[in-house]
Amino acid sequence: MKKSFTFITALFLATSLCFAQGSEQEIKEDFVPSVLNQPGKEYPMVNSQGYARFKVEAPDAESVVVSLGLGGQGGTKLTKGEDGFWTGTTAGPMDEGFHYYHLTIDGGVFNDPGAQNYYGSIRWESGIEIPAHDQEFYALKNVPHGNVQQILFPSPSTDISRRAFVYTPPGYYKNTSKRYPVLYLQHGWGEDETAWMNQGRANLIMDNLIAEGKIDPFIIVNTYGMTNEIKFGGLRNFDIKPFQTVLVDELIPYVDSNFRTIADQEHRAMAGLSMGGMETKMITLNRPDVFSYYALLSGGVYAPDDVKDHENLKLIFISSGSKERPEFVINSVKELKAAGYNAVSYVSEGTAHEFQTWRRSLYQLAPLLFQD
Amino acid sequence: MKKSFTFITALFLATSLCFAQGSEQEIKEDFVPSVLNQPGKEYPMVNSQGYARFKVEAPDAESVVVSLGLGGQGGTKLTKGEDGFWTGTTAGPMDEGFHYYHLTIDGGVFNDPGAQNYYGSIRWESGIEIPAHDQEFYALKNVPHGNVQQILFPSPSTDISRRAFVYTPPGYYKNTSKRYPVLYLQHGWGEDETAWMNQGRANLIMDNLIAEGKIDPFIIVNTYGMTNEIKFGGLRNFDIKPFQTVLVDELIPYVDSNFRTIADQEHRAMAGLSMGGMETKMITLNRPDVFSYYALLSGGVYAPDDVKDHENLKLIFISSGSKERPEFVINSVKELKAAGYNAVSYVSEGTAHEFQTWRRSLYQLAPLLFQD
Repeated sequence: MKKSFTFITALFLATSLCFAQGSEQEIKEDFVPSVLNQPGKEYPMVNSQGYARFKVEAPDAESVVVSLGLGGQGGTKLTKGEDGFWTGTTAGPMDEGFHYYHLTIDGGVFNDPGAQNYYGSIRWESGIEIPAHDQEFYALKNVPHGNVQQILFPSPSTDISRRAFVYTPPGYYKNTSKRYPVLYLQHGWGEDETAWMNQGRANLIMDNLIAEGKIDPFIIVNTYGMTNEIKFGGLRNFDIKPFQTVLVDELIPYVDSNFRTIADQEHRAMAGLSMGGMETKMITLNRPDVFSYYALLSGGVYAPDDVKDHENLKLIFISSGSKERPEFVINSVKELKAAGYNAVSYVSEGTAHEFQTWRRSLYQLAPLLFQD
Repeated sequence: MKKSFTFITALFLATSLCFAQGSEQEIKEDFVPSVLNQPGKEYPMVNSQGYARFKVEAPDAESVVVSLGLGGQGGTKLTKGEDGFWTGTTAGPMDEGFHYYHLTIDGGVFNDPGAQNYYGSIRWESGIEIPAHDQEFYALKNVPHGNVQQILFPSPSTDISRRAFVYTPPGYYKNTSKRYPVLYLQHGWGEDETAWMNQGRANLIMDNLIAEGKIDPFIIVNTYGMTNEIKFGGLRNFDIKPFQTVLVDELIPYVDSNFRTIADQEHRAMAGLSMGGMETKMITLNRPDVFSYYALLSGGVYAPDDVKDHENLKLIFISSGSKERPEFVINSVKELKAAGYNAVSYVSEGTAHEFQTWRRSLYQLAPLLFQD
C-alpha cells in the first residue's frame, strides 16, 4: 500500500480526561486480560470497575509510564519489581470502551507488547478495551456475518490506487439480484480507513442489528479522509476539495459500478466522526446532490440555513458524548426541527471524545437510515 | 475478533542468517525510508545494497539493540547520540524482501515505532522491506485490483466464528455468472491468517499475474492454521485433526456456498509455507479426495509412495530458498517425476526461510494451477 499520510484537530476539542467519576472506591481484584490483547498475552488487564493494570518487562529501564491516566498528571507511572517487570494500575476507573495508549520508556515512545495496535494520533497505538455495560451490541456473536473487504480503487486525481474497506451485509453473496443503499463513514484526525472496523467494530454492530431485525441491510464504505496533513489550528485553511474529489468523483462511482448499490442520492448517506464530521459537513454543503442522509458524530453541527436549499434531504443526525459539549448537539437539533427538518440528536452517556461514543452513535443512526 | 491463538517450528529449520554474501563493501549513502514504515516515518531506512539503518528515540535508555543482524552476534547494537536518538546500521547487506524484527530496550522487547507491524513469532513484530531486484511482481500497480475480504465463518467444532481472508480476482463482481477455482493457502508457525496478504502481498502478486495474462483468475483463501499452540519439538505429537475439521468440513463448505467457486476436487488446491506446508501434506494425505493440486513452500516434501493412491492428483509443487536445504526439494521432485507424477520444483535464489522465498514460490506456482 502507498502511504504518505500525515493530519487535524477535532471540532469538539476532546477532553483528554477519560476517567469515570468517583475514584475513591476500593479496587476489586477481578482483573482479566483486555479483549484487545495480542494472542496469549495476560497484560494489560481490566477489572469490573474499569481500572486498567499494566505489566511490562524492561529490567534495565529507569522509567516506564503509561499514557492512560488522570489528565494533567502524566499518566500512570509503573513501578519496577525485582523480576524486572514494571507494573501499575490506573489511579481511577476508565470510561467504558476503547482507548488508545502508549508507553514512554526512558523518554522514548513505544507500544505495549501485550496489546494489539490501532491507528490513531497518526501512529499505530496500543489499544485497550474497558468492558462496557452495553457491550453486547458490538460483540462477536453466532449470527450471520457480513464481509469486510479491502478494495483498491483507481484515483486519477491523486495518481495512486487508494484503499477503502467495504462492509457487505450477510446475504449479499446469496441473493445476487438485491441492491443496497450505502453509508460512507469517515474516521477522525490521526486515524485512517481501518478505524471504523477495527476500533469501531462497525461490521459487528451491523451484523447484530441485522440479526435482530432492527435495520434493513446496507453497505458501509470507509476510506482515508486525507485528514492527517492538517496541522492543529490550520482548520480555517482546510481545503476539502482533494478529498471531495476522491470521495465523490472517484470512490462513489467505483463502488456503484463494482457493488450492487442503489446508485442514487436517496440511497446514499455520509457520516463522520470528529474531523470526519467536519468533512461530512463540508462535502454535503458543497455537493447537496449526492447524499440524502447526513450525520456528524462529535464533529460539529448544521444550522438550518446551511441546508435550506437541499432537496431530498431526509435526515440530519448529530451526536456527541456527554463529556463533550452535548448542549451544542441538542440545541442545533432543536433549531433544525423548529425549521422543519427531520433532525435527531443523540448523547452518549458517560463517554468523551472516544470510540465508545461513536460505536453507540452508529448503533443509534443505523435504524434511521434509508427509511423513506 | 476472538483470539486465543498460540504455535510450531518449521520442517526446514530456518537459518537465522539473513545476510547476503560479501559484507566488505563500502556502504552507499543512498538510504531511503523502508516502504513498510508507518505513514510519515523516516526510519528505518534501507539502501540500494540492502543495508538497513535504524534510529530510535530513547534518551534515558542504557541499551537499544535491533534483532536484525549477523547471526550469532546478537543483532545490531545502536549507539546513543547527544540528541537522545539511538542509531545504527546493519553490519552487512540483508537478503532481499521482507524481514520481521524487534528492538530490545533495556532488556525488554518492543517494536520500532517507525515501522508497521506484522504478525509473526506469535507477536506483532516490526517489519522492514529490503528492495528486491524482482520486486515488480508484487508491486502495487495501476492495474485492475481484486478485493481481499474478511469473512467470519461458523465453526461448530471450535464453537466460535473464525476469521478467513478471501481474495476475489478483478471482475468477480462484474461478471456474476463466472465461477472460479480456489487455492487454500496457509501461513507458517507464529503467523496467522493475515500473513499471506500483508507480508506475502498475495493479492498484488495475483493482480499483476492476471493483468499480464499469465494466469486464469482464481480465488485464494487464508485462515488461521491453529499452529501456534505447538511447541518447538512437539511436532511428532501434532494432531492435525482439529484444523483439518475446520478447513475441510467447515471453511470449504462455507466458501463454496458463499462465493462463486467451482466446488469440486479438480478445482481446489492446497498450499502452505513452513508449518503450513506440513499441514498441507497431512491434510492432503488424510483427505486425498478434496484437493487436486498440492504445494509445499519450505515445508517438507512428498515421497512417491505418499500419494500412490491419490486419484485426480494434478500437480505437486515443492519449493524452498537456496539458503535452506534445496537438495531435498530437488531430489524429491526428481523421484516424483520418475514415478510418473506431474511434479515441479522451485528454488528461490539467494533467499532463506523468509517471505521473499514464499512470494516467489506463489508467483511460480500460480500459473501451474488449474491448467487441466
